[in-house]
Amino acid sequence: MEKIEKNSPGSQILKGFLMATLFYEPSTRTRLSFESAMKRLGGEVLTTENAREFSSAAKGETLEDTIRTVEGYSDIIVMRHFESGAARRAAVTASIPVINAGDGPGQHPTQALLDVYTIEREIGKLDGIKVGLVGDLANGRTVRSLAYLLSKYQDVKIYFVSPEVVKMKDDIKDYLTSKGLDWEESDDLMEVASKCDVVYQTRIQRERFGERIDLYQEAQGKYIVDRAVLHAMQEHAVIMHPLPRLDEITVDVDVDKRAAYFRQAKNGLYIRMALLKLLLVGW
Amino acid sequence: MEKIEKNSPGSQILKGFLMATLFYEPSTRTRLSFESAMKRLGGEVLTTENAREFSSAAKGETLEDTIRTVEGYSDIIVMRHFESGAARRAAVTASIPVINAGDGPGQHPTQALLDVYTIEREIGKLDGIKVGLVGDLANGRTVRSLAYLLSKYQDVKIYFVSPEVVKMKDDIKDYLTSKGLDWEESDDLMEVASKCDVVYQTRIQRERFGERIDLYQEAQGKYIVDRAVLHAMQEHAVIMHPLPRLDEITVDVDVDKRAAYFRQAKNGLYIRMALLKLLLVGW
Amino acid sequence: MEKIEKNSPGSQILKGFLMATLFYEPSTRTRLSFESAMKRLGGEVLTTENAREFSSAAKGETLEDTIRTVEGYSDIIVMRHFESGAARRAAVTASIPVINAGDGPGQHPTQALLDVYTIEREIGKLDGIKVGLVGDLANGRTVRSLAYLLSKYQDVKIYFVSPEVVKMKDDIKDYLTSKGLDWEESDDLMEVASKCDVVYQTRIQRERFGERIDLYQEAQGKYIVDRAVLHAMQEHAVIMHPLPRLDEITVDVDVDKRAAYFRQAKNGLYIRMALLKLLLVGW
Repeated sequence: MEKIEKNSPGSQILKGFLMATLFYEPSTRTRLSFESAMKRLGGEVLTTENAREFSSAAKGETLEDTIRTVEGYSDIIVMRHFESGAARRAAVTASIPVINAGDGPGQHPTQALLDVYTIEREIGKLDGIKVGLVGDLANGRTVRSLAYLLSKYQDVKIYFVSPEVVKMKDDIKDYLTSKGLDWEESDDLMEVASKCDVVYQTRIQRERFGERIDLYQEAQGKYIVDRAVLHAMQEHAVIMHPLPRLDEITVDVDVDKRAAYFRQAKNGLYIRMALLKLLLVGW
Repeated sequence: MEKIEKNSPGSQILKGFLMATLFYEPSTRTRLSFESAMKRLGGEVLTTENAREFSSAAKGETLEDTIRTVEGYSDIIVMRHFESGAARRAAVTASIPVINAGDGPGQHPTQALLDVYTIEREIGKLDGIKVGLVGDLANGRTVRSLAYLLSKYQDVKIYFVSPEVVKMKDDIKDYLTSKGLDWEESDDLMEVASKCDVVYQTRIQRERFGERIDLYQEAQGKYIVDRAVLHAMQEHAVIMHPLPRLDEITVDVDVDKRAAYFRQAKNGLYIRMALLKLLLVGW
Repeated sequence: MEKIEKNSPGSQILKGFLMATLFYEPSTRTRLSFESAMKRLGGEVLTTENAREFSSAAKGETLEDTIRTVEGYSDIIVMRHFESGAARRAAVTASIPVINAGDGPGQHPTQALLDVYTIEREIGKLDGIKVGLVGDLANGRTVRSLAYLLSKYQDVKIYFVSPEVVKMKDDIKDYLTSKGLDWEESDDLMEVASKCDVVYQTRIQRERFGERIDLYQEAQGKYIVDRAVLHAMQEHAVIMHPLPRLDEITVDVDVDKRAAYFRQAKNGLYIRMALLKLLLVGW
């Protein structure tokens, strides 16, 4: 996919195919990533930036009815929705493929795929790695999906480093334990950073704290990845982040080759190209 | 058009042509249908999802000036507007074709075309058919346009079935009478259903009732197409609906082969493909 | 570019290239002009109509981080921003070309290019011309950019005709003087019109007057280009306007061949086609 993307005048692999992006929550990063993927493969796109105000949904149409209409206009649907389980309902209804581009607090499977792919490319392996998951582990569907996916590999060790109010929830911990994956919680980012292959930082999501700005501010400043953390890290290790970042990674870290987050964002393009090809014309 | 749509890697009939969708009211269903039609024929699209907030219109630019600019950037304009007559004003101004995709309470001609096409495909003929128009006949431009178009055919009989507050207006009734089309009003949906080839249900539009929620609720529940109505219908008859539907057709009707409304929505694609081809490269 | 635009089935010069339009302020005219230019050359487009509500920007992501992500999905970025200097920041960050499509009260360089191109086409030369800049000279970045660009030519004379409250600022006047360009201020539109090759009218921007609607109204009605002004103008002279216009040019002027503003808007397409070709595949 990387070779195809670089190629001019562009691939024709998905020529004649039409993808509908049905975003009930705006997410320009994810939407542009999918649309770029489709176009890099020669396919076409129907865009809905804000399907929540989709006149039909606003008038009370069910998601199922919307899907039955949109599937008549396209070959594949990429859907972001604000409700957990919405993607599954759409997939059950549709006779064409539906890709879940995030369903509320539920899953964000293509993000987890690009994260695993980035680790593979950056570290060279997934079995036996040590991963520090840092920041908002309670609300971030990204880290939840990643922890889930890492349990498929051998001898992975996960360190959870998060402020008290946004600790990783028991469902994921129990799942990892049941799969035999080794995990522990720590409040020493420096020590974790020195041991890990991957430091996966995430943004504390202010919108989850409501009125409790004091709690947000306390959580927000607690674990910052800066040059001191970088200094503690091994030479081969990398820093990842699903983006957007505020100041939980300081800007002076960007220039270090171990700062992998913009390469990670780019990998999202390759993963989505591969997924679209797989679902539309096979392997 | 159906064969072209199924074809991979896609048609090139409208390759090099550019359609601008200028929607002053959001209507994702209609917009996606037109954009899909253009792309299925190999054409390209410039999208404006919300032209009402088009900076120039917001600053007080006339529709005529907007059209004079947009016609310089495209080969055909598809316009949805909130004012009756806006499409005609645009068409008079433009030197390129303008398709009316709905102008306020005025007309929605491509919907009427796809409705007539659906009846032809489902019933096999238009002359001599019996059609029940059900629901909001006062505000629905869809049924008004369809009644108008049905008057072009021979020996059509129309039954109007609607709550008192949203009855079909006299202008259409007078027009039908002047054309010699036979129509009557009825408040017995079951009996009408048993006689008709087409039961055309529509949504009661809550937004037209303002504060009078009591009137809305009374109107809304009055004529529901459910399995009992289905049971009364003839084997060859069909149920149509311009969509979106709320509960004026119950979901358990969907599985019956006489539920034609999603096929009807799909026919909108074919009709719009045909219209774009006709206007851009001829027949 | 004009020949290419007329050509069916369309050019393939930019086939395989992807342009991202990142508009932090809505401006459908400019956005559609760029997107049409890209598609007329066979290129593809990723659209963001309202990047200000770009979820990541709304969450506090820096412009630099956004650019680092979007540059991974496209080959060129066209950006409209509400802050002066934003385009420069984006260009410094990006490894792909960034076109400034207007940055707040700063610059609007592609508008200035199309203005100069229009004068060249309409009058046949730029050296030695007389230009009347009329209307809101304080707030209009268009006339500021045009005055700046005109100083590159020989023996140009500029007349500033504007209400007291929105006079041309000293920075531009001093710049023109330092370049040896001859300018003067006048309050006699009729006399200026009789002498000029180009009468460049602009809209008084109501949004700049805040509560002072009285000042706006006074300024707004002061210099109107109507048939009397047209009558005073020379036969070869033209009226230009960046659009949208309200009533600062009366509609009865439109039919005169010297009304060049819609041709000017169309030239924006050709200029942007040329610019995209230049930046993506060279000359």
